[in-house]
Amino acid sequence: MKKDSQYMYKCLQLAERGRGSVEPNPMVGCVIVAGGRIVGKGWHGNFGGPHAEVEALRDAGSAARGATMYVSLEPCNHHGKTPPCTEAIIAARIRKVVIGMPDPNPEVTGNGADRLREAGITVVEHVERERCEALNEVFLANALQNRPFILLKVAQTLDGFIAAQKGTSHWITSEESRTEVHRLRSLYDAVLVGAETIRKDNPSLTVRHIDGRNPWRIILTRSWKLPLSSAVFTDEAKVRTIIVTSKKSARENAAVVTKMRKQGIRVVDVTTDVMEFASLKSMLTRLQNDFGIRSILVEGGAEVFSAFIRARLADRLDVFTGPKIIGQGRGSFSALRPLHLTDAHRFHVEDVHQMGGDVYMIMRPAKED
Amino acid sequence: MKKDSQYMYKCLQLAERGRGSVEPNPMVGCVIVAGGRIVGKGWHGNFGGPHAEVEALRDAGSAARGATMYVSLEPCNHHGKTPPCTEAIIAARIRKVVIGMPDPNPEVTGNGADRLREAGITVVEHVERERCEALNEVFLANALQNRPFILLKVAQTLDGFIAAQKGTSHWITSEESRTEVHRLRSLYDAVLVGAETIRKDNPSLTVRHIDGRNPWRIILTRSWKLPLSSAVFTDEAKVRTIIVTSKKSARENAAVVTKMRKQGIRVVDVTTDVMEFASLKSMLTRLQNDFGIRSILVEGGAEVFSAFIRARLADRLDVFTGPKIIGQGRGSFSALRPLHLTDAHRFHVEDVHQMGGDVYMIMRPAKED
Repeated sequence: MKKDSQYMYKCLQLAERGRGSVEPNPMVGCVIVAGGRIVGKGWHGNFGGPHAEVEALRDAGSAARGATMYVSLEPCNHHGKTPPCTEAIIAARIRKVVIGMPDPNPEVTGNGADRLREAGITVVEHVERERCEALNEVFLANALQNRPFILLKVAQTLDGFIAAQKGTSHWITSEESRTEVHRLRSLYDAVLVGAETIRKDNPSLTVRHIDGRNPWRIILTRSWKLPLSSAVFTDEAKVRTIIVTSKKSARENAAVVTKMRKQGIRVVDVTTDVMEFASLKSMLTRLQNDFGIRSILVEGGAEVFSAFIRARLADRLDVFTGPKIIGQGRGSFSALRPLHLTDAHRFHVEDVHQMGGDVYMIMRPAKED
Repeated sequence: MKKDSQYMYKCLQLAERGRGSVEPNPMVGCVIVAGGRIVGKGWHGNFGGPHAEVEALRDAGSAARGATMYVSLEPCNHHGKTPPCTEAIIAARIRKVVIGMPDPNPEVTGNGADRLREAGITVVEHVERERCEALNEVFLANALQNRPFILLKVAQTLDGFIAAQKGTSHWITSEESRTEVHRLRSLYDAVLVGAETIRKDNPSLTVRHIDGRNPWRIILTRSWKLPLSSAVFTDEAKVRTIIVTSKKSARENAAVVTKMRKQGIRVVDVTTDVMEFASLKSMLTRLQNDFGIRSILVEGGAEVFSAFIRARLADRLDVFTGPKIIGQGRGSFSALRPLHLTDAHRFHVEDVHQMGGDVYMIMRPAKED
């Protein structure tokens, strides 16, 4: 089992090479092992290109016969952009296939494994499944929920405040933590904040501390009290700014809306109040369909965090805690109505470590939640 | 250097054997190394008994000649309950002494190292000093500040609440975390809470989840609104309960005070309001002098936590975070006046790890604070 895990980690490392090129397909890695050593390696490298299994078989050549294949995602059994991997595996006389995670598509899940078993191949499933799923968390949200993957990033004091009572948040966390946020921005298709954050902090929401591409910038507003001189409306990246508002508010602020649009800023209008569940859901679908946004980093403030938590739309919650006590301030989720402990929104801590003097916690919603 | 650290860890392991028997002396461990192996081991085992260095020299015998000694605390150079260790080291012809932490007593610090150097011995200092000091954190507070060591233990939600809005705190953290708190109780001389915690939770404040001795129980009150039926006033351990109050309040509630005292409960009166700096300081001195209390685990609630933070009387801050969001509730330090981020009480994270689904952070006041 330990050896199985090691080969699966190797698959995950190979899979990672496809990041940024295979989307909206999942990243997949594959190794073929014979006589205790790797005789073939492959990964899914480009959208529409050959699958990891086919690449690994090609790399192994005749050494694949009688060998064991490790693959991070269940091999496909259908004709898509490429012929089914299962047939290639059978034809190559692989004897055993070890699979990380099943195909998440409910219409085809299990078919690949079944086909291999029918052909007399030994199949082992769910090896390091959690890690395989974590690698493809964005793909899973897109495929299963038809919406972008949502990460809530909170930077708070030890006593749970994202800003002091006067509204300042410079700086709760260390420079290292802030650089890590820039790294996250470069990996996500979009960053999302509420209008209050634009008014209070006038952030650029671009990637600066490291090299990396800038994300889309999404701003939720009810009031359209948005200073036109804000960085997100005036800088070079302004054509990558999207304002989300209700239809009613867009009508009431038609002049501003027109002006914004003329400057290349996009406006998405949703039916009800922007913080409501239905609006968030329809916004997410439109952001995915109209702009190809498959992942969103939500950066605040409290009302936005509370709205996503209330709607149970957070796939992951990252909390950077600066070890400081300020007594009172703006609570991270203070727009939620007070809950009993038994009704709390619960999370599972996936990882926690120190970062530049802060504590960085990575969480996912608890399964029962 | 790496080898030096390894031998110093060995000293710390040995030192630990004295816990519970050497107080109010510090725990000290010592190894003697010759030809790359340990030829002598010693630790301070009992108050008034021989020091670690003397035990290690005895264990090494003639092998000490020309060897290197590792010791977690600077050897003494004065006649106390035992003759000076420096003379024993010189007499044994030790060639080199590696020291963890200096003697904290400002009147004698450095004297031991100086004496050894005068005798021609090579001396290396500050090897794993932080760890050596952490082992003897209680001794250091006692010796340098003439008061008990103070650990604030906070169990809070992800959004910084120690209780829901209705006052309930069952349960914010996991059973494993709560067991760890019982372990802490068994290691501390006293547990301290505010009267509000007694009224709300009626805790026993005893050690139950594990085997261990019960701590003293200290209760701060202004109002004397303390239900006489509370566990801490009625259970078997009630003679180990101490109520701390102001002189004024004690006068105004003379009848209750007398009744409490008749039942074996101790009452300590301080000059001003119990939450004020001067009262906390004089309380701590009296708890140390009159009751031999050298370490206190402060368990809440918000007003008590705030008072100790405001007075900068927390030597260590342990926060157990249950990964739950409740939106609003009783903030951990909500009795502090709101601070700017630049005036925040700052901490240094010494360790963070997962515990039974929670995140357990161990912190100390930042040096600049």
